[in-house]
Amino acid sequence: MIPRVALPWRNGLRLRVLSGSRGCCRSAHNTLRNDDGRSIVISPPLVSLDIPDDWAPSPAHSCFSSPISSSNEQTATVIDGKFIADEIRTRIGSEVRRMKEGIGMVPGLAVIVVGHRRDSQTYVRNKMMACAEVGIKSMVAQLPEDCTKDQLLGALSSFDADPSVHGILVQLPLPQHLDEGKVLDVLRPEKDVDGFHPLNMGNLAMRGREPLFIPCTPKGCIEMLLRSGVEIAGKTTVIGRSNIVGLPTSLLLQRHHATVSIVHAFTKNPELITCEADIVVTAAGVPNLVRGNWLKPGAVVIDVGTNPVEDPSSEHGYRLTGDVCYEEAVQVASAITPVPGGVGPMTIAMVLSNTLDSAKRVYAFT
Amino acid sequence: MIPRVALPWRNGLRLRVLSGSRGCCRSAHNTLRNDDGRSIVISPPLVSLDIPDDWAPSPAHSCFSSPISSSNEQTATVIDGKFIADEIRTRIGSEVRRMKEGIGMVPGLAVIVVGHRRDSQTYVRNKMMACAEVGIKSMVAQLPEDCTKDQLLGALSSFDADPSVHGILVQLPLPQHLDEGKVLDVLRPEKDVDGFHPLNMGNLAMRGREPLFIPCTPKGCIEMLLRSGVEIAGKTTVIGRSNIVGLPTSLLLQRHHATVSIVHAFTKNPELITCEADIVVTAAGVPNLVRGNWLKPGAVVIDVGTNPVEDPSSEHGYRLTGDVCYEEAVQVASAITPVPGGVGPMTIAMVLSNTLDSAKRVYAFT
Repeated sequence: MIPRVALPWRNGLRLRVLSGSRGCCRSAHNTLRNDDGRSIVISPPLVSLDIPDDWAPSPAHSCFSSPISSSNEQTATVIDGKFIADEIRTRIGSEVRRMKEGIGMVPGLAVIVVGHRRDSQTYVRNKMMACAEVGIKSMVAQLPEDCTKDQLLGALSSFDADPSVHGILVQLPLPQHLDEGKVLDVLRPEKDVDGFHPLNMGNLAMRGREPLFIPCTPKGCIEMLLRSGVEIAGKTTVIGRSNIVGLPTSLLLQRHHATVSIVHAFTKNPELITCEADIVVTAAGVPNLVRGNWLKPGAVVIDVGTNPVEDPSSEHGYRLTGDVCYEEAVQVASAITPVPGGVGPMTIAMVLSNTLDSAKRVYAFT
Repeated sequence: MIPRVALPWRNGLRLRVLSGSRGCCRSAHNTLRNDDGRSIVISPPLVSLDIPDDWAPSPAHSCFSSPISSSNEQTATVIDGKFIADEIRTRIGSEVRRMKEGIGMVPGLAVIVVGHRRDSQTYVRNKMMACAEVGIKSMVAQLPEDCTKDQLLGALSSFDADPSVHGILVQLPLPQHLDEGKVLDVLRPEKDVDGFHPLNMGNLAMRGREPLFIPCTPKGCIEMLLRSGVEIAGKTTVIGRSNIVGLPTSLLLQRHHATVSIVHAFTKNPELITCEADIVVTAAGVPNLVRGNWLKPGAVVIDVGTNPVEDPSSEHGYRLTGDVCYEEAVQVASAITPVPGGVGPMTIAMVLSNTLDSAKRVYAFT
């Protein structure tokens, strides 16, 4: 005879979960109280659970006393993202010329930037230069930091109506007064070359379906793995679960038959999961989060992090560093992407590739 | 000096992945050949990677010689899905009465069935009976096995145009000549009480967003966990990655801050991942796949499998069994859902709940 579990609502209590707040995820699900309201299921609205993934350093990953590797001899090969991206960009350039010669058209990319964040300005400038280099027409709508939602939507619909624009990017993050979700909802999936529209995300997630666009950074990661001859269908850990990198990367890896574990800021002992993985893709935005002993010997490491850290010796007073403690990881991994020069150039190449694909689709150009 | 990886395209080869076929996932990514075509990125179309998840029995999970548990004393409590579902259905009934008395309206659910699969007929009949019991108006469009896509879409748009219908279910699976994806695309997300539309799936996946409907089986699983006081924010393994259960369950668990690993038919040694999990949700459709030694002592087990297995002693010649070897699991787990009487009744309760929510939304009834 197996005992049946004693459940609180058998006593006639109506229960609901208290609304989420910072720290809720560790305890709210057990925090139930009487409810005279109308809720029938106690599952809370999902957005009430959304709390920032703050990767506060913990003793578990801020310091290790054990040696990083049992042997210091192994040295990872470096997956040269810049080299691969250059090759792809050269081929995109050829395709754009072929399109221009064939039908007199070129792909067009429009970027909307709100405010003057230095990193956003840099990203946008890099994309524009990359477009110019391969012959893709590009245009920028620069809106003031305090622009209204209507102004932003106006810029969007103007590009949406322009038949020479095949891809529209809204440079994220937006200022807090603008709701990213609502803005991205307005962007038609057909021009969503970032692949961030929920319809594209749903089609990325669901087997048997094909999104119009795959988000550029995850697509760049897969492209690097494939071109490096890495078997994707193994154990993979994705560190980070952002809508723009972690989530679509985990979905895309699953479509490629990886067995994926997704680690985030609320994961206890993430190193115990990560050290089982054949491939580690990290997009946490925390410099040096992934130490050498987080990695299985021979793992392939894709480091999406581009974190500015202070460096007085550098020209701008800071330098970019990844999520991975590179010096330690190269002693353990079999292959690794550097920062900079790894994922970053691939992301831009995939923006160009998605824009070209969009124009080809519109013009039925093969 | 770190050596740079020797990459094949440095020799000027243009590479692409051979199109996917059965078994591709273990080797295709390494199967590259010269390509005189126009592909720029070598990532294949995702649908070309889609292959059935056939869980062929292997020695690893067909037989164990080791004892199931070091102690036979522990006995799991049983999470009584029927009891929880009954409680929810009673409350839905009250709400439907309150709506009828308040505004003279009741929720309406329409189901479209193609053909006469016995399991589909049973599922539909159960849903209809459940609707009747709580006062939800229900209607069925029964279409012949060989109906055309246009006939099916006709039934869909008829229900779509009917303001007394707040939810539409297309009973899956459809006969092979009908493309499930294309049919579901036509269903408006506002009446998609199954939550299978890619827009709803994308909004389920993305933090900061709320789908109009959460798929019923995953929602039922979460509801059982919450009502049983189980802490969701731990290590969780989802076994199976179907669009209707495995995928949305993994997405929903992540929204609840679980650290999720998704195991599928191509996972090597799935038991090594599963036995690390605090919660195991299994939806593989393979009877007795999950043995006792797949489980961590004290794990919570949610068994979504409802697999008919031959049983001459049973009235119909078969009985339903889960994905979990129940007799072994109850010796290891701390809590477990039975089959039948676990997830099944919860799924139906969530269909009713989603339909009620939809009607409330349409009538702005609170």
